[in-house]
Amino acid sequence: MTHSSRRARLSAEIRAAGLDAMLVTDLINVRYLSGFTGSAGALLVFADEQPPVLATDGRYRTQAARQAPDVQVAIERAGARHLLAQAVAAGARRVGFEAHVLTVDGFDALTAAISADHAVAGTDSRAELVRASNTVEALREVKDAGEVALLRLACEAADAALVELVERGGLRPGRSEREVRRELEALMLDHGADAASFETIVAAGPNSAIPHHRPTDAVLAAGDFVKIDFGALVAGYHSDMTRTFVLGPPAQWQREIYEVVEAAQRAGREALRPGALLREVDAAARMVIAEAGYGETFSHGLGHGVGLRIHEAPGINATADGTLLAGAVVTVEPGVYLADRGGVRIEDTLVVADTAGQAPDLLTRFPKELTIL
Amino acid sequence: MTHSSRRARLSAEIRAAGLDAMLVTDLINVRYLSGFTGSAGALLVFADEQPPVLATDGRYRTQAARQAPDVQVAIERAGARHLLAQAVAAGARRVGFEAHVLTVDGFDALTAAISADHAVAGTDSRAELVRASNTVEALREVKDAGEVALLRLACEAADAALVELVERGGLRPGRSEREVRRELEALMLDHGADAASFETIVAAGPNSAIPHHRPTDAVLAAGDFVKIDFGALVAGYHSDMTRTFVLGPPAQWQREIYEVVEAAQRAGREALRPGALLREVDAAARMVIAEAGYGETFSHGLGHGVGLRIHEAPGINATADGTLLAGAVVTVEPGVYLADRGGVRIEDTLVVADTAGQAPDLLTRFPKELTIL
Repeated sequence: MTHSSRRARLSAEIRAAGLDAMLVTDLINVRYLSGFTGSAGALLVFADEQPPVLATDGRYRTQAARQAPDVQVAIERAGARHLLAQAVAAGARRVGFEAHVLTVDGFDALTAAISADHAVAGTDSRAELVRASNTVEALREVKDAGEVALLRLACEAADAALVELVERGGLRPGRSEREVRRELEALMLDHGADAASFETIVAAGPNSAIPHHRPTDAVLAAGDFVKIDFGALVAGYHSDMTRTFVLGPPAQWQREIYEVVEAAQRAGREALRPGALLREVDAAARMVIAEAGYGETFSHGLGHGVGLRIHEAPGINATADGTLLAGAVVTVEPGVYLADRGGVRIEDTLVVADTAGQAPDLLTRFPKELTIL
Repeated sequence: MTHSSRRARLSAEIRAAGLDAMLVTDLINVRYLSGFTGSAGALLVFADEQPPVLATDGRYRTQAARQAPDVQVAIERAGARHLLAQAVAAGARRVGFEAHVLTVDGFDALTAAISADHAVAGTDSRAELVRASNTVEALREVKDAGEVALLRLACEAADAALVELVERGGLRPGRSEREVRRELEALMLDHGADAASFETIVAAGPNSAIPHHRPTDAVLAAGDFVKIDFGALVAGYHSDMTRTFVLGPPAQWQREIYEVVEAAQRAGREALRPGALLREVDAAARMVIAEAGYGETFSHGLGHGVGLRIHEAPGINATADGTLLAGAVVTVEPGVYLADRGGVRIEDTLVVADTAGQAPDLLTRFPKELTIL
């Protein structure tokens, strides 16, 4: 079972950190470890072989049993508190918690509960809550086969939608950014997406120079760059892709910056090898843009992990520590943005290969050469 | 200015709590108090006349200046830490923070920053972080005129979309729940919504007995109940409405439970007076359902506040403390659900009047008598 093998990896991390158990309260992490997708829940995972417990409320009784059949389910409104008491009852003394997720009020309530339970039990032993931030997120950085399969489906839905949008003439002068957004998002649903994975960016003309522009009533015009950054959501997994088109024959400056970004994006993809330093992957692409004289306009990082969240570990940027892991799924998305004129970004989602000799697996397959519409 | 008057109300609360300033880190609360809608930011509000400060990152320099022109803007990546240092520099000693929002890691970082700044300053005075949970949420419970205007627009967009869906025959045997959802959400955009305010519920036949069913490929059939719970988002404000239809002549049991829910919903609306105990509003509707013998099937609360979030204060349910405030905007949504047969819910969004003698202002105006399609 996928979820049980993920929990086994977490148990190993729990043991390595000298903990007896871990209380998982981030809902995405609960989903990753159990399959449960409800909007309220927490999961207790032990360092040893003791069975995990999922706490949720009465609305999710049936759903929890169906989605997480190999996990014990407790129907409790104060789920985290119940799980902590379960951990203590099972002999756990050092219980990890997600200090990057749990609020101060939530922590206060758990601490008070420990004291109250301790007073009732009247024993000498006392449980301790130990900060264990980003433990599950670190596991999530490397995707397993089931996750890659879903990310592939999400990328295919996005690819197919963009192909159909272009083929039916959806990108033409006179349409508004908002209209294009709506049509593209509807086409993703037609091609199997559950939803858009984030609010689609459609940025025409000078708006294409704004890295994260929100679609407006601005109308596409001949000669414009049209930058589209979008993705599909499939079974909780996000795709992420950007393509930039030009409406009619490109001006010389447009051709020039497109070629620079295309070359930078290729360099970034080629640097995507397991074991590579993250900041060197960023540098590989950034150098191409800097050497062409546009270094200052590339104002964001090169890429990021994608999975159950649209942005997750690792960040690929100039200040990132660490290395790229085999099996990570990341974006490569350099851009050049010329204020008040226009900008280009090209972005793919790729799976890092197992060995340094292998190229990454490209999940977003829509062509990247300059498409003149 | 609306935002400045909201901040003035917060300053009064800050003074009443014996604080010198408050650090607001919840993004919805930042938006409420400043107008800024970016995805990263924090706001510092003082007890006295000192000007508020909004911290955000470089991506939002232009947007922050445009959306919050009457607030000082600081471009800082570690925004909360910067604001805390600002507060201390301005003489604040007791600084409130949102303990229901700030994570344990975030709190640790702020505490460490205070110690570090204190060591550098070398003074005796030391700032203290004080829990001030739900202070802004309590202000948000009563809506001002601008908020009611936006909620009205959101409700009108939803009303108009449902009218058009019904008129064009969108609810007919043979269509899937998913198709109906897509069409209704598209119609809301046509009628001025920025987006759906939450994932639309379309529940046909036996699925209508599931209070929060997600649309599936299940097909509407003659004789079915079709329950639709949906809303529009306009400028950050959410509408929320449920209507239940029947496809063709209703069976006796369908007519019966529809009439029970209709009567319960009317009783709930009539109990919606300023000063009423929240649990008595809930009881007014619940009693109608209980007396008809369906009490056990009404498994959720009667209603909730709506505004910048789809669910906010007050909760109207059997265990709620407190009273209904004049100017609160709430839903009234009783339901009866017969497992494996079908269910009915009728939900409106209403503004509580200023005096007990006045009826609430109904924002969702789509008819509530049983519509036979």
